[in-house]
Amino acid sequence: MRGAMIYAPGDIRFETREDPKILHPTDAVIRTAVTCVCGSDLWPYRGLEPTDEPHPMGHEYVGFVEEVGSEVTAVKPGQFVIGSFATSDNTCANCQNGFQSSCLHREFMSTCQADYVRIPNAQGTLVATDGTPGEELWPGLLAVSDVMGTGWWAADAAQVQPGSTAVVVGDGAVGLCAVIAAKEMGAERIIAMSRHASRQKLAREFGATHIVAERGDEGVAQIKELTGGIGADSVLECVGTDESMRQALHAARPGGSVGFVGVPHGVAVDGQELFFSHVALRGGPAPVRRYLPDLIERVQTGRIDPGKVFDLTLPLGDVAEGYRAMDERRAIKTLLKP
Amino acid sequence: MRGAMIYAPGDIRFETREDPKILHPTDAVIRTAVTCVCGSDLWPYRGLEPTDEPHPMGHEYVGFVEEVGSEVTAVKPGQFVIGSFATSDNTCANCQNGFQSSCLHREFMSTCQADYVRIPNAQGTLVATDGTPGEELWPGLLAVSDVMGTGWWAADAAQVQPGSTAVVVGDGAVGLCAVIAAKEMGAERIIAMSRHASRQKLAREFGATHIVAERGDEGVAQIKELTGGIGADSVLECVGTDESMRQALHAARPGGSVGFVGVPHGVAVDGQELFFSHVALRGGPAPVRRYLPDLIERVQTGRIDPGKVFDLTLPLGDVAEGYRAMDERRAIKTLLKP
Repeated sequence: MRGAMIYAPGDIRFETREDPKILHPTDAVIRTAVTCVCGSDLWPYRGLEPTDEPHPMGHEYVGFVEEVGSEVTAVKPGQFVIGSFATSDNTCANCQNGFQSSCLHREFMSTCQADYVRIPNAQGTLVATDGTPGEELWPGLLAVSDVMGTGWWAADAAQVQPGSTAVVVGDGAVGLCAVIAAKEMGAERIIAMSRHASRQKLAREFGATHIVAERGDEGVAQIKELTGGIGADSVLECVGTDESMRQALHAARPGGSVGFVGVPHGVAVDGQELFFSHVALRGGPAPVRRYLPDLIERVQTGRIDPGKVFDLTLPLGDVAEGYRAMDERRAIKTLLKP
Repeated sequence: MRGAMIYAPGDIRFETREDPKILHPTDAVIRTAVTCVCGSDLWPYRGLEPTDEPHPMGHEYVGFVEEVGSEVTAVKPGQFVIGSFATSDNTCANCQNGFQSSCLHREFMSTCQADYVRIPNAQGTLVATDGTPGEELWPGLLAVSDVMGTGWWAADAAQVQPGSTAVVVGDGAVGLCAVIAAKEMGAERIIAMSRHASRQKLAREFGATHIVAERGDEGVAQIKELTGGIGADSVLECVGTDESMRQALHAARPGGSVGFVGVPHGVAVDGQELFFSHVALRGGPAPVRRYLPDLIERVQTGRIDPGKVFDLTLPLGDVAEGYRAMDERRAIKTLLKP
């Protein structure tokens, strides 16, 4: 089969790789329906994470079950399935507590920009749809496997409540999906921080009531002005830089909450500053598995359409161009079709 | 009148000071019934916070109203009152959100180890008891003005739930009161981290079901062993050092919460580590005012007795010895009687 490999920053190659096989009785192998490039794939692409040796890429997937290991009974060959970028047995204490992305048997997916993918912990990870969804739903369901699930988690971790004010920091695919989540959770005012016209437009379409284009202190001042001087109830930090985290913490009101879902790079939080801010902070890899049944239903019933974050569709073979387009911000998110 | 002044680390003097007066129509002046020395008073006493010039000390108080400003109608002369170390108008947006210790008109108390005290924002700050409570209740009510209110906030910020497991880091007065709070909120297992026999004993009396004497990684390993390998649901961090914060964060399970209520000194939290821990972090100066009516009732009905944290009672004039005893850990907390 064929799949994407990274060799070095900026060097993505589409190559023939060994067909994945069942290695453990808890595995499944799926044939990819659609896959995509994630904002977090850009960290190594940009050299901000090291690439010590060539390795496969991709952690988002929906597809058809090809084969299952002997202990997998929850899904069967032929079914259309969705899973999280973090696999989970869904039975350990952390899974039972709803934090499947901290499963004691967690394995992060990393080979999904390919024709076929081996899914560890398949029993607890994969959720099958009722019947095979129409192709028009595949992008939305694919989004659920990571960016929509992560946006939902941002809103959940930031404790978005009905009637509240939510600020979304970051206008990438996760930030845009976070707008959807804040709206679904009943936020009355949703302020998207975005400088890009096309992303502002999509944010509004998804439910943003206000756009703040300024960043840093100026951006925070705008948020304060929109919130009676005190800051927002919830801030959804969807970037992961020190600047974005600072912006998020300063935009929240005393007693407010920041949910941070972009993997932090070079972020340190000063204890005393956090203390006097009265702001709560919770982040981590999204426990997408917890949300899957609900989010799948919202997509299948047409209530939400996170698939709109894909503004570039390419054949899987053009994966390198998919990275380039995102790196150069020509695309929000690239959908790849095997 | 007489009151305590700090001149330099280790140098507390009891001196004649000017009688406090009503300076603003929102002030009250109270005659101190009892006051005390706080663990946080030891930061400047130990030179860990600078003392640039001599200044009064003390932020915990209960007493009798002497005089009120023209805008104060909620309490009147002669009443026995309790207030928080952080004054609040109780009407601004932050107060209405329950974060009175971030009141837009907040003033921190700092002159309370004295015969008389001026209370800013008296209308929103002071709560009068029904009638004058017996002297045996004064220590408990005094504790409510800070350490018990702060222990309650630790449990609240750490989201202690009925049936859960709570760990308390720190066996000072706040940590011991945090044990009371965790018990009142229904924690099934309360693990107090303490190395001192007398404090362990009081922790058990207050509701601790387990004691862990180890610190750092060893202490965390003990917590993990007591919690099926995953950590505690809630950790109440009542110290404020980098070591204690680290211990707290590592003792919490994925999806658990740390409430941190000791003013952090030299604490920096690594963003990526916090991210992958899935632990929520909320701290700050306790919004004691929110809890006052409830905690006063719990003390007056005898349901809780946080006054037991006072294991040394001295005349106010011996305030310097009160500091010494706490600094040398001969006393948990010193009660001072004018």
